[in-house]
Amino acid sequence: MASPVRVIHYGLGPIGIEAARVVSRRAGIVAVGAVDKDPAKIGRDLADIADFPGPSGTVVRSSIADLPGVSAEVALHSTGSYLAEVRPQLEELLLAGLHVVSTCEELSYPVGERTEIAAELDSVAKKRGVVLLGTGINPGFAMDALPIFLTSISQDVTSITVKRVNDAGKRRLPLQRKVGAGLEKEEFQRLVDAGKVRHVGLRESVQMLADAMGWELERVEETTAAVLARERVTTAYLTVEPGQVAGVHQVGTAFMGGRPVITLELQMYVGAAKESDEIWIEGRPQLHLRSEDGFPGDIATSGILVNAATRVASLPPGLRTMKDLPPAHYRSS
Amino acid sequence: MASPVRVIHYGLGPIGIEAARVVSRRAGIVAVGAVDKDPAKIGRDLADIADFPGPSGTVVRSSIADLPGVSAEVALHSTGSYLAEVRPQLEELLLAGLHVVSTCEELSYPVGERTEIAAELDSVAKKRGVVLLGTGINPGFAMDALPIFLTSISQDVTSITVKRVNDAGKRRLPLQRKVGAGLEKEEFQRLVDAGKVRHVGLRESVQMLADAMGWELERVEETTAAVLARERVTTAYLTVEPGQVAGVHQVGTAFMGGRPVITLELQMYVGAAKESDEIWIEGRPQLHLRSEDGFPGDIATSGILVNAATRVASLPPGLRTMKDLPPAHYRSS
Repeated sequence: MASPVRVIHYGLGPIGIEAARVVSRRAGIVAVGAVDKDPAKIGRDLADIADFPGPSGTVVRSSIADLPGVSAEVALHSTGSYLAEVRPQLEELLLAGLHVVSTCEELSYPVGERTEIAAELDSVAKKRGVVLLGTGINPGFAMDALPIFLTSISQDVTSITVKRVNDAGKRRLPLQRKVGAGLEKEEFQRLVDAGKVRHVGLRESVQMLADAMGWELERVEETTAAVLARERVTTAYLTVEPGQVAGVHQVGTAFMGGRPVITLELQMYVGAAKESDEIWIEGRPQLHLRSEDGFPGDIATSGILVNAATRVASLPPGLRTMKDLPPAHYRSS
Repeated sequence: MASPVRVIHYGLGPIGIEAARVVSRRAGIVAVGAVDKDPAKIGRDLADIADFPGPSGTVVRSSIADLPGVSAEVALHSTGSYLAEVRPQLEELLLAGLHVVSTCEELSYPVGERTEIAAELDSVAKKRGVVLLGTGINPGFAMDALPIFLTSISQDVTSITVKRVNDAGKRRLPLQRKVGAGLEKEEFQRLVDAGKVRHVGLRESVQMLADAMGWELERVEETTAAVLARERVTTAYLTVEPGQVAGVHQVGTAFMGGRPVITLELQMYVGAAKESDEIWIEGRPQLHLRSEDGFPGDIATSGILVNAATRVASLPPGLRTMKDLPPAHYRSS
């Protein structure tokens, strides 16, 4: 067996902690460092924070500068959704000579004004000979990499539709906040208009699909509506009263030749009774795939983060995306 | 746009012809040669044989030696299921400096006594700096590459089960013969015992899954039973009377630590009313995926053959498998 991949956990929020648990029980990968800015976590053993059998000997530090002598290959980065905000962190990790696998949604497939930051990060990664990759359940799998993979058997593809219904009540608090759970309708609308309440990643998934299919899009429309609670919903973190916002119903539609060719519909709200993921690929053959109970978000995001970490070194240096990564499948050892 | 991938169609049976049709309408790939041993096809234009608008200018020849001056990159090889039989063809194509993408089932993931031939082909491919890849819907996707891809989101995997129900009546005649459609039960059993009636590829899919998961299997069991026709079934090629064999019910089970960790169950028979593909991945998370009407075999096999042909040059030289190929997704151009 090859020697285990040595990783640094950077960011110990709910996803980072879950990833640390996965790494702790997997043979082919080992944590050699951990970083978080939270004073309540700094100085403690990683096993203590992530609640796995320890001590692990890996103590949480406030920055990678506090990890002298630690020889790691990959950083598992999980601190935020917005590329402009996490950019200094990514840069520091790349400059330290680490491959970086990140859950930053905007990094998964940089579009719009983020392409400039992406180009700079790409350049830093190439100079240091390392790979930077954004991943997660969505963006990164459910609405982009998986439908792309399914088209492996397609002779022709004329349109792609993905529908995901996800119970935000089972997700981490930051995500429940991000979809506006517990807000009044007016406040929700104000935050949607300010771009502060939404699932981050729909636009990115649309573009990854379009580029994979070789489609030049004419325009992309995105709508974000509130899903209102019909009855009181209580999660581990908050309570939503009837009439308050339970979450988002977000639709991204991409047009080519005057007709919609990509439709991504996401319902993510607390109290969603039946979770599911469905994919329709029109063309030859017609494909309709259904994940019976959906892909559980936070479990899957930490899973794919760890799996991608074991594969990332196989890619050429630079900013890479899930559409080009060889299957980052699970491996027991 | 990059210049189109130049291919040779090697073998113009039902799959090869269908692949030629796909290539004829795809921008990023172009046929520059065609080879078949059938005297009824030799000397005719490919468009005539594959029934697409022509003439294409590509005339079918009896061997690649009859294609002087043809500069191709990839051969789409589709002539047979058994590696020992197609080996001289593969060798000739590799020695000619061509990447080869083949529908030979035993090539998809060589096991048992085929590993020796595989090692020799690998060595030839490496010497010539080209890639050899076996692909198709099954083996190559439905029961191996797709479940492997799904485990990208898995923290832990404890077992994998795949069930495929496929109507052989919609498939090509060679496949209908391969599953024993129209045989009497005794004759079926005789041919099963001789290894001449079966779906080829189950053992290969089992091993691809096991190696991807990093599982050391203790043993693999394979059973092949007849599915008998309850009523008369007529396909485009043959008629099956009630009580005759309609096809196979084949199960491959792999054991580790005394318990089954991989179960592949295939029902492939003429007259299957409801086609489907289902995948269960036990572990964390539990996953259950269902393709509502199944993956249509011959359409999908020719689709993945063409898609893989456009991607194969990205792999390092040698014998490669679908478990390591970056997503060979559809691309319009």
